[in-house]
Amino acid sequence: MFVIKIGGSILFDKENQIKQQLVSNYAKTIRNIFSVSKKKCAIVVGGGKIARKYITATRALGASEAYNDIMGIEAAKLNARLLIAALGDIAYPDPPRNFQEFQALFNKTYKIIVCGGFQPGQSTNAVAACIAEVTKAEKMLNLTDVDGVYTKDPDKDPNAKLLKELHINDLVELIAKQTTKAGQYPLFDYTAVQFIRRSKIALQFINGTNPDNLSKAISGKQIGTLITH
Amino acid sequence: MFVIKIGGSILFDKENQIKQQLVSNYAKTIRNIFSVSKKKCAIVVGGGKIARKYITATRALGASEAYNDIMGIEAAKLNARLLIAALGDIAYPDPPRNFQEFQALFNKTYKIIVCGGFQPGQSTNAVAACIAEVTKAEKMLNLTDVDGVYTKDPDKDPNAKLLKELHINDLVELIAKQTTKAGQYPLFDYTAVQFIRRSKIALQFINGTNPDNLSKAISGKQIGTLITH
Amino acid sequence: MFVIKIGGSILFDKENQIKQQLVSNYAKTIRNIFSVSKKKCAIVVGGGKIARKYITATRALGASEAYNDIMGIEAAKLNARLLIAALGDIAYPDPPRNFQEFQALFNKTYKIIVCGGFQPGQSTNAVAACIAEVTKAEKMLNLTDVDGVYTKDPDKDPNAKLLKELHINDLVELIAKQTTKAGQYPLFDYTAVQFIRRSKIALQFINGTNPDNLSKAISGKQIGTLITH
Amino acid sequence: MFVIKIGGSILFDKENQIKQQLVSNYAKTIRNIFSVSKKKCAIVVGGGKIARKYITATRALGASEAYNDIMGIEAAKLNARLLIAALGDIAYPDPPRNFQEFQALFNKTYKIIVCGGFQPGQSTNAVAACIAEVTKAEKMLNLTDVDGVYTKDPDKDPNAKLLKELHINDLVELIAKQTTKAGQYPLFDYTAVQFIRRSKIALQFINGTNPDNLSKAISGKQIGTLITH
Amino acid sequence: MFVIKIGGSILFDKENQIKQQLVSNYAKTIRNIFSVSKKKCAIVVGGGKIARKYITATRALGASEAYNDIMGIEAAKLNARLLIAALGDIAYPDPPRNFQEFQALFNKTYKIIVCGGFQPGQSTNAVAACIAEVTKAEKMLNLTDVDGVYTKDPDKDPNAKLLKELHINDLVELIAKQTTKAGQYPLFDYTAVQFIRRSKIALQFINGTNPDNLSKAISGKQIGTLITH
Amino acid sequence: MFVIKIGGSILFDKENQIKQQLVSNYAKTIRNIFSVSKKKCAIVVGGGKIARKYITATRALGASEAYNDIMGIEAAKLNARLLIAALGDIAYPDPPRNFQEFQALFNKTYKIIVCGGFQPGQSTNAVAACIAEVTKAEKMLNLTDVDGVYTKDPDKDPNAKLLKELHINDLVELIAKQTTKAGQYPLFDYTAVQFIRRSKIALQFINGTNPDNLSKAISGKQIGTLITH
Repeated sequence: MFVIKIGGSILFDKENQIKQQLVSNYAKTIRNIFSVSKKKCAIVVGGGKIARKYITATRALGASEAYNDIMGIEAAKLNARLLIAALGDIAYPDPPRNFQEFQALFNKTYKIIVCGGFQPGQSTNAVAACIAEVTKAEKMLNLTDVDGVYTKDPDKDPNAKLLKELHINDLVELIAKQTTKAGQYPLFDYTAVQFIRRSKIALQFINGTNPDNLSKAISGKQIGTLITH
Repeated sequence: MFVIKIGGSILFDKENQIKQQLVSNYAKTIRNIFSVSKKKCAIVVGGGKIARKYITATRALGASEAYNDIMGIEAAKLNARLLIAALGDIAYPDPPRNFQEFQALFNKTYKIIVCGGFQPGQSTNAVAACIAEVTKAEKMLNLTDVDGVYTKDPDKDPNAKLLKELHINDLVELIAKQTTKAGQYPLFDYTAVQFIRRSKIALQFINGTNPDNLSKAISGKQIGTLITH
Repeated sequence: MFVIKIGGSILFDKENQIKQQLVSNYAKTIRNIFSVSKKKCAIVVGGGKIARKYITATRALGASEAYNDIMGIEAAKLNARLLIAALGDIAYPDPPRNFQEFQALFNKTYKIIVCGGFQPGQSTNAVAACIAEVTKAEKMLNLTDVDGVYTKDPDKDPNAKLLKELHINDLVELIAKQTTKAGQYPLFDYTAVQFIRRSKIALQFINGTNPDNLSKAISGKQIGTLITH
Repeated sequence: MFVIKIGGSILFDKENQIKQQLVSNYAKTIRNIFSVSKKKCAIVVGGGKIARKYITATRALGASEAYNDIMGIEAAKLNARLLIAALGDIAYPDPPRNFQEFQALFNKTYKIIVCGGFQPGQSTNAVAACIAEVTKAEKMLNLTDVDGVYTKDPDKDPNAKLLKELHINDLVELIAKQTTKAGQYPLFDYTAVQFIRRSKIALQFINGTNPDNLSKAISGKQIGTLITH
Repeated sequence: MFVIKIGGSILFDKENQIKQQLVSNYAKTIRNIFSVSKKKCAIVVGGGKIARKYITATRALGASEAYNDIMGIEAAKLNARLLIAALGDIAYPDPPRNFQEFQALFNKTYKIIVCGGFQPGQSTNAVAACIAEVTKAEKMLNLTDVDGVYTKDPDKDPNAKLLKELHINDLVELIAKQTTKAGQYPLFDYTAVQFIRRSKIALQFINGTNPDNLSKAISGKQIGTLITH
Repeated sequence: MFVIKIGGSILFDKENQIKQQLVSNYAKTIRNIFSVSKKKCAIVVGGGKIARKYITATRALGASEAYNDIMGIEAAKLNARLLIAALGDIAYPDPPRNFQEFQALFNKTYKIIVCGGFQPGQSTNAVAACIAEVTKAEKMLNLTDVDGVYTKDPDKDPNAKLLKELHINDLVELIAKQTTKAGQYPLFDYTAVQFIRRSKIALQFINGTNPDNLSKAISGKQIGTLITH
């Protein structure tokens, strides 16, 4: 069992268009890995730009932050449906609406369940980490548009180096410095990290702009940043 | 009881941005009308450009037309949530997922229920017409970005004239000439018109780019095109 | 994957009694076909006389046409349960209540799902066609008490001839001449035909008073009327 | 709060036709009583002849007794919908599917909830008694086609006398002599009587072929047989 | 298919602590029996002391007996979750909330479903008997802390003898002498026995303080008391 | 609108018995406050000792931490039902199962909704804070068995002083030093505090062993520790 978190940022190009070909490639990669093996996976897709567009609107319209979170959740589910469309009948046709629905679906019936968000105050990273815990997953893979965790911000400092490994306590420290608003959950959030830490989940950050990285990570190759306990 | 269908096309500008101010104005107009009176309303919001963007992607990814319809339904529900955010607690906080949920919600509890689509093969117009029938609505108002039904296509023919009234049989004839694909339901579709015809529902097409037109239509003013029986 | 629509008219005799033996024979035929093969099927059962009896009552009691449709849907589900009883544990024990429930059930778990109607304004034919589309069914079989589509009404004109094939456009034209009331959906309705046409579904009309015709149609024999695209 | 159990036998005439006028009269009587007062009611409708017809068929088709019970439950819900149609929007539009649904509906929202059965092994009398207990109803009224409980079987013995009152212990003794099959729950059953006894519910048996008897019983007049504790 | 009723009394020791080791042993025994065979089972767990503790409180707080029953149902479900935790992924992760949910889960998907109670007025014995009927179970095993049914109360009379067999009619007579309150359902109750009698279910009472007795009873050994028809 | 979090620790005495009288007093206090005013409240009850007892067992039986959380959630819901029993029909009769259910219930229908937990990884404090955010509550009151937040641990240091006010940033710092296991959520947790901080919710910690403190806090008196922004 693997949990794959696909950042919403990967799914859209600079003109805000859906990267259809990438979605298609991901579906092929995932089918290749899981249709032959006995393993299963849960995929959690983020909200990306479309989430932020709707959240900007509802925040301006006076909604509560919890409601704004729901906009992000629903946008993430719309993105999840893109992947479901590409995966075909190996995947359950709907993203589950909450943890209870996920748990009812998971278990022998479907090889793959694709999720968006579940409830306010919980990022899609937290959804993925919670699923990793309850399914006792081998590994949770976090796919974004960067190569992993750096010593410094690579956009600002040319001396920033990619960390091959990072201890969970150091990840917690990094996170502690962040602040949160609906739809703006950073690299990883505190609620998500709680699951990782308390159940010693193997978490790996990899660059998701190329689906091959996913194959590599699942077959156990060193790539990106691995969180150690 | 009124049923208001708001075309998704009204909600986005040419740069594909959400017309936040218009949504806000609609919320004010609707609150003005319904918070004082004993009347209730159901609002059905269409999928618009966002629906078409996602449908284009899933169709290319090989999904069935029914699945593409679902993309349109979910996009319409995301749009519906924009209006819910602006309406505040006068409206039920979630768009119902199917007819049964709508019916359970409707009846004394909430003044306003905002819906997107319900199920494949059924346009948001059909959802609105079905609701108008089951609630025995006084009137169903169809808001698009044109002024009503014309004798000819006004974009192509400068002599096209707006019809103040149109008999249901003539509307059916107009519709019979159209073809359908998921997310491309034209002005009005056959499934929707069946409800209108069999229950003699008062249907009015008006220009929705200005919320004042909604106030006029609800207060009984002649505007747009009225379907007669 | 096959979709089988069984007209409610087949299930009752002239004295309004349930044709128990026919239901039993259908169950045997269907088990024979599907228990050995890897194929699955969805069966949609119509409301028949019992539906019309209840609809007549609720219409007289002042219910909306949408409500009358619900009476037809519930009666169809009662009929569906007859077939479920006869099929035993090869079939899911309840008719799904709406499209979402069907979709959650369909996929690997059960070989056979038996449905009645889903929602107002949608005939059991439309339910069957929608299922055929979303499951990408090989064929949709429509079983009634006539042999197929005729050139003219065979009850009125002895020269009427059974059509072996009929183009979808010609079927649409036939349908365009009909009118609709709750519980009185004719041979085939416009909403249903939209699915058939837009997804080029192989639709075949056969005489369902003899279950052997079902076996023949599924094994690919020419029988009844086939709709071509 | 009152609970009214309407025996299915009242709703059909000897030719198995729906007694539409009686349903309409009941709706008028019930609206008269409850629309003016602050009181609420729950109505439980039995399955009657239609239930027995379907149960006979499923039993012959080899279904379990629990499944046969479900046929009775669904038929009872179809009958419940007749009364809902006649009551209009004073009643919740669907019969609840189980106890949890009933409880969610009951409480301030609707004046009247009309139920059929809930689950196998539980007669509609037991449903009514359970509702009477949980809602702490003033009275539970049991409407059948006889005048109440007699000293002997009035069809067989001309000396049989109607009992104005009957102690709960004597009712239990009467019931102990009966046997049960799905759809053949007699006058009152043991599961139902348990609720009545343990919570000392005021239960009254009255003749339901005339809706006026219902008005009389609710206004406290002596009529039929009252169970004492 | 087997139905196993585990009395809540078995799960707690005299100091009201959970008998964790016994739960673990039961899980091992049940996995041993069912993971190799093609057979399935449903397990119904009672409420035990924890149920009585909460019911005592809610009764004192003025709740209806139906509400008190719900406390017992929820406590039984909490106990059911203990067994689910120990069984791991061979069992469905949640106790079903009502009969409909059980039926939707049962059928091919899971080997084992663990239940608590379903609804007021229905003991966990009745839940087990209803499941035994609808699934046409080979046998229903009733596990309590006594060895079976005795000629007299063994706590009071040293001459009391364990009955190897007991006819259903004699069981009914025994039960007729009992009275009921929420959470105090005795050895077996009338509602439960109705299922047993009408469907001639093979019911066996055994001592559940030792999980080996379960293995013996399932492999067909004479143990405890068998109910005959 | 107020959100009241009642710590599970308040509900049980040292012998692990339910403090029935305290529950009754709380119900009276809450009815006094809310039955007269137009205000509503949501109450979230913690799991307390009963939660820890079951979690200890399931952890030993090998369940995941997420599953252990579910034990805590269900125990909290059992405790919530105690309060519901005492509140009577002013409260919704069931604790909602997740955020979506809460949101559907909240809004005009019920004055009071009593909740336990919602989903793994989320303490009952986080549930309460999320509800406070989405309902734009005036205040969230956190009732435990201590008087508020102290400068030091009052059990260890006699010089510890109760803080009348505490800035949210200081609360966050306090929390950052804690670690988490299922069922052992300390005073307040990081997920909960995120809602408080991002929406500037007025949070007050008070001693809940005396219901009068609740009345005082709601009427605006200075008591316990107030979190400032």
